[in-house]
Amino acid sequence: MYGWSLRLAWDGTAYVGWQVQPNGPSIQAVCEAALAELLGGERVRLRAAGRTDAGVHALEQVVGLRCRTRRDADALVRGLNALLPTDITCLSAERAPDDFEPRAWVERKTYRYRILARQAHCPFRARYTWHRRSELDIVAMREGASQLEGQHDFSSFRAQGCSAAHPNRRIESAQVFANEDEIWMEFRGNAFLRHQVRIMAGTLVDVGQGRMSPDDIRRVIESRDRIAAGATAPARGLVLVSVELADAPRVRSRQD
Amino acid sequence: MYGWSLRLAWDGTAYVGWQVQPNGPSIQAVCEAALAELLGGERVRLRAAGRTDAGVHALEQVVGLRCRTRRDADALVRGLNALLPTDITCLSAERAPDDFEPRAWVERKTYRYRILARQAHCPFRARYTWHRRSELDIVAMREGASQLEGQHDFSSFRAQGCSAAHPNRRIESAQVFANEDEIWMEFRGNAFLRHQVRIMAGTLVDVGQGRMSPDDIRRVIESRDRIAAGATAPARGLVLVSVELADAPRVRSRQD
Repeated sequence: MYGWSLRLAWDGTAYVGWQVQPNGPSIQAVCEAALAELLGGERVRLRAAGRTDAGVHALEQVVGLRCRTRRDADALVRGLNALLPTDITCLSAERAPDDFEPRAWVERKTYRYRILARQAHCPFRARYTWHRRSELDIVAMREGASQLEGQHDFSSFRAQGCSAAHPNRRIESAQVFANEDEIWMEFRGNAFLRHQVRIMAGTLVDVGQGRMSPDDIRRVIESRDRIAAGATAPARGLVLVSVELADAPRVRSRQD
Repeated sequence: MYGWSLRLAWDGTAYVGWQVQPNGPSIQAVCEAALAELLGGERVRLRAAGRTDAGVHALEQVVGLRCRTRRDADALVRGLNALLPTDITCLSAERAPDDFEPRAWVERKTYRYRILARQAHCPFRARYTWHRRSELDIVAMREGASQLEGQHDFSSFRAQGCSAAHPNRRIESAQVFANEDEIWMEFRGNAFLRHQVRIMAGTLVDVGQGRMSPDDIRRVIESRDRIAAGATAPARGLVLVSVELADAPRVRSRQD
């Protein structure tokens, strides 16, 4: 058996999220089916560096694979892409230890939440942005975002049904950028609770609209109450930008 | 009655093109239905600066409208966008003479043809690019494109069934750009034959692959034979970038 680390990208619009679920097509199921076809029926199980919600996109997700193929990386990428639908692509493959479990190696994940801030919607960005006509105060949003940085109990920013063992997470950075007619909120950290990024984005939009002050963010955190935070921003505006791993999985395994 | 000039943008993936047709939804039909609803049942007829094919996109098309509404431009744009689907948007509206016929006022149209030139397809650009894995010789494509510039009989670059009165057109500029992993072919002219841009793009790809030399382009033009040119490139890679009009329609009409 050989271990592999794959980098995948996808448009999540048509999917129930990464994980296999009974209620619709998942990225995982589609990729596993394509791999089974490519590998002549060999059953494989993909392990991602983390789950993503229905409708959320990925510019780069890292996924672990164990299989018997003797193909080289280029042939694996080409073969897989020939079988994947156009809304999922494999960007690269590299050998990894047999027991490569990406979730255990995550050092940092970066998520971006995109808001389209203008009067008219945009046909080319409707699937990738949350369209908001009202003006947003970027300076206030930045101040609010900075309150989210650091180690906190994020119970207020956690969806019902979140299965994490505890609500403590460390946000390395929470930044707000204005890019032409878009506002981007970027969050870096080693792990996030269920819906955490979307609830943080929705809450910062409340700050941008003046419904909450930047300092209220600290009070929302301290309340440890989901009701105190803003609404969960729509999935379509969220994209997993990158996953950085600790060095070890990139080391070549003994089979090489 | 008041004349209006509207600027529209759309993702053409789901449409049979601009013009109303029996075999599926057209941009024109969807926009006219939204306007009829907005204007309380008033029947309107939109007139575009030109047709676009099924699957072709527009960053900016100019459309003429005549209606009885006393709304101001902002209210017209807002009202229309509230009724349009997310893949069509009205960017702006301005008053125009009652008899404003955009097609008659076109001074210059710019079309862009986008090629995604890399091994893996891209989930976010599958609808907007022609994905080509083979390497393309940009220098040769540029040389070939320059042969298309000027006034020519473009019979070789004209689809069967093209209803234009004559095949002579003037290409003001035909340029080839390399942008990271994309190649853009941009064509400016006051008018184009049916499928002309897509056939020019397909033929320049043949040049980029070495199946034709840049000088062959001149021979293809001279042959006045569709068979001599390359294949019609897929519609999804084509976007109408802008339409420039002569000054007159922007003059305020007497009702002001």
